[in-house]
Amino acid sequence: MQGFLHKLTSLDDAVKMALRELSLNPRVEEKPLTQALGKIAAEDVYAPYSLPLNNRSAVDGYAVRAEDTYGATPSSPAELQVVTRVSVDSDPSSIPSIGRGEAAEIATGAPLPPGANAVVMYEDTERRGNRILVYRGVPVWGNVSRRGEDFEEGEPVVRRGTVIRPWHIGALASLGISRVKTLRVRAAIISTGDEVVELGDGGPPPPGRVYNSTALLVSSYLREKGLGEPSYLGVVGDREEDLYLKLRDTASRYDYIVTTGGTGVSSGDIVPRVVERLGRIIIRGIAMRPGRPTSIGVVHGKPVFMVSGFPVAALAALEAVVTPVVTGLLEARLPESPVVEARLTRRLANAVGYTSFFRVRVYECGGELCVEPLRITGSGILSTLVRGNGILVVPEHVEGYEAGEKVRVILINPLEREKG
Amino acid sequence: MQGFLHKLTSLDDAVKMALRELSLNPRVEEKPLTQALGKIAAEDVYAPYSLPLNNRSAVDGYAVRAEDTYGATPSSPAELQVVTRVSVDSDPSSIPSIGRGEAAEIATGAPLPPGANAVVMYEDTERRGNRILVYRGVPVWGNVSRRGEDFEEGEPVVRRGTVIRPWHIGALASLGISRVKTLRVRAAIISTGDEVVELGDGGPPPPGRVYNSTALLVSSYLREKGLGEPSYLGVVGDREEDLYLKLRDTASRYDYIVTTGGTGVSSGDIVPRVVERLGRIIIRGIAMRPGRPTSIGVVHGKPVFMVSGFPVAALAALEAVVTPVVTGLLEARLPESPVVEARLTRRLANAVGYTSFFRVRVYECGGELCVEPLRITGSGILSTLVRGNGILVVPEHVEGYEAGEKVRVILINPLEREKG
Repeated sequence: MQGFLHKLTSLDDAVKMALRELSLNPRVEEKPLTQALGKIAAEDVYAPYSLPLNNRSAVDGYAVRAEDTYGATPSSPAELQVVTRVSVDSDPSSIPSIGRGEAAEIATGAPLPPGANAVVMYEDTERRGNRILVYRGVPVWGNVSRRGEDFEEGEPVVRRGTVIRPWHIGALASLGISRVKTLRVRAAIISTGDEVVELGDGGPPPPGRVYNSTALLVSSYLREKGLGEPSYLGVVGDREEDLYLKLRDTASRYDYIVTTGGTGVSSGDIVPRVVERLGRIIIRGIAMRPGRPTSIGVVHGKPVFMVSGFPVAALAALEAVVTPVVTGLLEARLPESPVVEARLTRRLANAVGYTSFFRVRVYECGGELCVEPLRITGSGILSTLVRGNGILVVPEHVEGYEAGEKVRVILINPLEREKG
Repeated sequence: MQGFLHKLTSLDDAVKMALRELSLNPRVEEKPLTQALGKIAAEDVYAPYSLPLNNRSAVDGYAVRAEDTYGATPSSPAELQVVTRVSVDSDPSSIPSIGRGEAAEIATGAPLPPGANAVVMYEDTERRGNRILVYRGVPVWGNVSRRGEDFEEGEPVVRRGTVIRPWHIGALASLGISRVKTLRVRAAIISTGDEVVELGDGGPPPPGRVYNSTALLVSSYLREKGLGEPSYLGVVGDREEDLYLKLRDTASRYDYIVTTGGTGVSSGDIVPRVVERLGRIIIRGIAMRPGRPTSIGVVHGKPVFMVSGFPVAALAALEAVVTPVVTGLLEARLPESPVVEARLTRRLANAVGYTSFFRVRVYECGGELCVEPLRITGSGILSTLVRGNGILVVPEHVEGYEAGEKVRVILINPLEREKG
């Protein structure tokens, strides 16, 4: 990596440059509502009508004219004549009007009869044959769900760029919207390196070989995050022509590409060289640790994210580069990640000028959260991601944190809780 | 709901009782690694061998005997004989041994030759034909990834109950594990209510009818959270015999059941009555708002969660009851939810004795986070879940919070960020 240190771009600048220089134009596809979960909405969706469509009762009780109940108390109740009964099934157009001194027995969700402007709850009444005693006054629109109270006709329900969550599905369904336009982002993952082999039927890899864990990590990360449908296209060796043909073909069929490996000195920088031949390099090396060789380019108009073959470095690049760039290009708004504040158990030094990603363990310690750095180096060390539960990001201008300082940690696994 | 208030169980007690009285025995199925994302591991998985399998170089440089480099400086370098070159492809059994005064050129990831116990980086050396000058001493095991450094043979990689995330997939792949046993939890969703109709081709529902938004919300919630494969089994009307047959049949084919609606006075409590006939009721009403009618029972050994037909009340029950109970019964550990601390913009009163779920909007305000309650009541009001972005849970013993107090909010949608 030597000779290359001088050209490193800061993480912030890298993301900004990528957002300026790249674009993503995924297809739009219409999905049945139940299949839209976790997808990114491709357009604003507006309420096609008001919800509720009519004023409705919010409780079980009696629909009344609020004025008839003013001042009612247990010792001086209002007395009303029950003239009808309204259920959720009742057709609003056939419900008789409520006049002065009258009431209609009404169920939760049933349409309010014309003339009525409030509902008194059963609890505040006593039935006497066809009459009721009302023991508590109710204000105008009391216990009524008013027309348009949930959604007004024409109001936005889901905005373009929203990642569709369960409550969006509920809201769209309540408005009778059964299909929704979503982005179909096709992401290709290509691995490089003669030493990388695919998983077999178990047992250690052949001498000098490693299993392709990074591509599977990248692919499942993109899927979990909703950043696209990942397709893993296999390992290309270290022959430049093979990678050239593979990248050229892939760029025509996918919206963006993530390559793993082949960005460092020992691989002869094969990936950036091929990207340069086929298109251009936008960022060559980022001031982040791990993940220094992370590079960004473009081939036939398609973004290419070149991440390390080492899984932890790849994960840092996914979190800090691929996620914000892809999200930004799609104008999407992802759900928040779980982040906690915790007290550092020991000093942590940063190489100033680098954004550093430390793997940590966060645990409950006497009513607060403590955070213990797991390991300073070793970008290949996956065990720290499954033994630990957090990533502590130290910005490039920070020299480090002292023991006892409060820091913010992204939780990638559950917190370790004290036995209660 | 009157007459029923006295029997409400506190939320904590309800969850504890349910965990004590219920059980879940889902099937175990073996999944290819790539399909295990988001599933719950059914057993502990141990490293089948150490990783790395051998001591490996962590950098590009020269493998040496550390002792030969002690005290080396730019003005008094150590001089070593380069006797071989080791690449990632090299078979560890055929690499010649390194003796005193000798070195082997070595690539990142290549196996350390016998006799060598450290690697000096290229940057710290100068090549002179078959010899190198070493300008900086290296300690024993310096720049070496040691055997078992990532995983020791027999060490746990994924624990039973872990929700499988991208890094677990990466770790399992790195160890050559291509299949993993996961829980297959089958959840059935049954809706009740004569007023509930299925989504059609758009347009408002017929008079007095509502679209079945709650079942879709429940189903997508369970899917997103990884609490089971949801199957929505349709709407049963308010006829008790229909629900009886449906529940009986469903209990034999699914691991647990969520019903929506039919738990309140206006529906004649049809669901709890049928559950009582078929099995037994464990909790009848919980001191939570919204969600008071939430009930828990068991039919033919299968848990039945009875949630409100109102979507917001159903969501509160999913978060506060279904999630902890199902998770606890499966002995699973879910990923953390995003939670933030934010300053309340206005006073919020709680009905003591109730755990209350307020829908709120969290936004950046001058360097900190502010939280504005959106609405106090209206458990049918879905718009607050898509307009707002958070849920503020007020525990039952808290009377309320004052304006300006810091409170914790679960973020269900992205934060509103200030324009930078």
